[in-house]
Amino acid sequence: MTIDRAQCEALDRDDPLRHCRGRFTLPDGVLYLDGNSLGALPRGVAERVGATVAEEWGRGLIRSWNSAGWYASPQRAGAKTARLIGAAAHEVTVTDAISINLFKLLVAARRMRPDRKVIVAEAGNFPSDLYVVDSVARLVGCSVRRVRAGEVAAAVDGDTAVATLSEVNFKSAERQDMAAVTAAAHAQGALILWDLAHSSGAVDVQLNRAGADFAIGCGYKFLNGGPGAPGHLFVAERHLAAVDQPLTGWFGHAEPFAFSEEFARAEGIRRMLCSTPPMLSMAAYEAALDAYDGVTMDAVEAKARAMGDLLIALFDQRLAPLGCRLESPRDGTRRGSHVSIGHDQGYAVMQALIARGVIGDFRAPDVMRFGLTPLYLGYADVFDAVAAVEDVITSKAFEAPEFQRRHAVT
Amino acid sequence: MTIDRAQCEALDRDDPLRHCRGRFTLPDGVLYLDGNSLGALPRGVAERVGATVAEEWGRGLIRSWNSAGWYASPQRAGAKTARLIGAAAHEVTVTDAISINLFKLLVAARRMRPDRKVIVAEAGNFPSDLYVVDSVARLVGCSVRRVRAGEVAAAVDGDTAVATLSEVNFKSAERQDMAAVTAAAHAQGALILWDLAHSSGAVDVQLNRAGADFAIGCGYKFLNGGPGAPGHLFVAERHLAAVDQPLTGWFGHAEPFAFSEEFARAEGIRRMLCSTPPMLSMAAYEAALDAYDGVTMDAVEAKARAMGDLLIALFDQRLAPLGCRLESPRDGTRRGSHVSIGHDQGYAVMQALIARGVIGDFRAPDVMRFGLTPLYLGYADVFDAVAAVEDVITSKAFEAPEFQRRHAVT
Repeated sequence: MTIDRAQCEALDRDDPLRHCRGRFTLPDGVLYLDGNSLGALPRGVAERVGATVAEEWGRGLIRSWNSAGWYASPQRAGAKTARLIGAAAHEVTVTDAISINLFKLLVAARRMRPDRKVIVAEAGNFPSDLYVVDSVARLVGCSVRRVRAGEVAAAVDGDTAVATLSEVNFKSAERQDMAAVTAAAHAQGALILWDLAHSSGAVDVQLNRAGADFAIGCGYKFLNGGPGAPGHLFVAERHLAAVDQPLTGWFGHAEPFAFSEEFARAEGIRRMLCSTPPMLSMAAYEAALDAYDGVTMDAVEAKARAMGDLLIALFDQRLAPLGCRLESPRDGTRRGSHVSIGHDQGYAVMQALIARGVIGDFRAPDVMRFGLTPLYLGYADVFDAVAAVEDVITSKAFEAPEFQRRHAVT
Repeated sequence: MTIDRAQCEALDRDDPLRHCRGRFTLPDGVLYLDGNSLGALPRGVAERVGATVAEEWGRGLIRSWNSAGWYASPQRAGAKTARLIGAAAHEVTVTDAISINLFKLLVAARRMRPDRKVIVAEAGNFPSDLYVVDSVARLVGCSVRRVRAGEVAAAVDGDTAVATLSEVNFKSAERQDMAAVTAAAHAQGALILWDLAHSSGAVDVQLNRAGADFAIGCGYKFLNGGPGAPGHLFVAERHLAAVDQPLTGWFGHAEPFAFSEEFARAEGIRRMLCSTPPMLSMAAYEAALDAYDGVTMDAVEAKARAMGDLLIALFDQRLAPLGCRLESPRDGTRRGSHVSIGHDQGYAVMQALIARGVIGDFRAPDVMRFGLTPLYLGYADVFDAVAAVEDVITSKAFEAPEFQRRHAVT
């Protein structure tokens, strides 16, 4: 039976997360389906950043490292993030870029398995992860075994120091079984490092329930921390005393203000810090997490799944006949919070959509991604998005020359 | 002859940089002598950051990577910084924290001298640099030779891959002869990596005139980029094609949006980037550099030196008799832009000064630092600062219990 907009509006009326949309400022005339790349601006963030600049920096000056709590910001933000990814507060910190955190943890993992010479990595993972894996392997004298995500569990063997993969793939949104893959790695004596870039804030991540060793995540996607927001980093409690990461800056020192010339690792998760945190970006990230106040991640995941199921049902009815290909799993338990659709003219179709305010993104060679962010999107939005795709294709609007030209960032 | 305040006011009237003070917002009742730790807030920065949050992020959303020029921010900021440190625009970028940039460049330098097994490092350098040197040495199989800054030139030999030191020491403000030390390193076939944390924006750094290979610098001190602002990084043009750094994230890829699974270094300085830049902190840094518009670094250095000479003359007259020790060079050509004064009760004296709005900082075990920032301080400020130190000591105000307690960050 054909799904109509009224049905979607009814779903929105019953949505227990409906009130969260008011926690964001979104421009008029825009249907934003790219929260998986850069999350929307939560209300309150502009004010918080403004106060950090004008009051804390401008008036407090250097004193704000104490008086405004800047110094504790990574731990405070880590504790707020921990609740959203199934971790304890003291196992998570917020610092640096996600690729840098991956570098730290991979070197540290290898040092915990010095007799093992292989890093298992996910072919098809976000490329930056693969570049960092290769770089670490070169530095520490390992080889890299690249296999598809579904084959990671089987590829880990007694030579594997650490395996790393994304819980949710950046392109297809395919989701791995964190508990099962972790158990398989542990059965071989290997460590596991999960990339949560497309999980944190989107699905009900359960790091400790799965027994994960390490994880990295991204602050600027589903967590809405702002462009280039610092990443988060998880070390399971049982590893906190041993973890030995190579970016040994003064913020990871046991006593930074003793100015000792010899490094002594801080106790606990603080040892994963390197240098002075970028406080304006930190302030935005911390404030942005308030959008999750009172929201449970199982409710977020349930809505993400329902929106994805709806999008796929609409895809079957309206887009499949137009030459579109579904590039994401149909099974909602194996899918994250976006749906990818392939089309031979995917780049131009996405540009035409963006021109009319329906903003998703594009990943080479031909995949359009539609991010489904449960806090600020609803079911009627999904309906409207599919209708827009249908119209851009059937009207051939995408054939206009301005939509065929490539930008630096897409 | 005793220096009085009227003489200092006369110097201020003749100061060619006097107009720059209006480029900063400083709180009433504060005499800020800690711009060497966290620079003051330049006018226009709050507005620029506000627009980045509300307009570019809030309304532009993902489109701002193109439309607001976010993607080019590291290069744009690098070009603006280059003028201030004697480098060409294409040799400098702005990214990551200074300790992370040191890590990148040390590994890269070692790879350019694979047959050499020693890193020469400055004993007494900012400790974070020493920690990173030790970490890199461990990763790449080098040993570390630590010598005082003045002995670095002599310590470099045919086994030295790279030498690293600060142009201006964080504690004493002692300044090294960049050209002479660089030439000595090159005479032995070694590379040299300068830390400009206490140079950039404070003295007339001349990287290319000195023939330097690599440099790192700090955005949040004299350059006023805001708390935890991204650092800057210099690679001499002759090394740009060969430099091979280990934090190989997607922003350093030749074609980041091709999403190739194999790393291919970007041409030029962009290869030094790792990951998505923290745009709020980047926006603040870029805007902050406008405070240097129309200002030459030789004028900044001349004023810094004159203020330092004045402070030392006042020290001799008023503070030396009170048990204070001068911990900075008297020779202005060998001194950066702060003056350090030792006192057995240095911590408590500084706390008492801060309580009355005279804000310097403290470095263990007993050094008070007074940062002299030519853009927003004048000669009468120097007079007032010394008078305040004198009063705190002679009145024994520092003996109050609240000034004896140590804070986490000082």
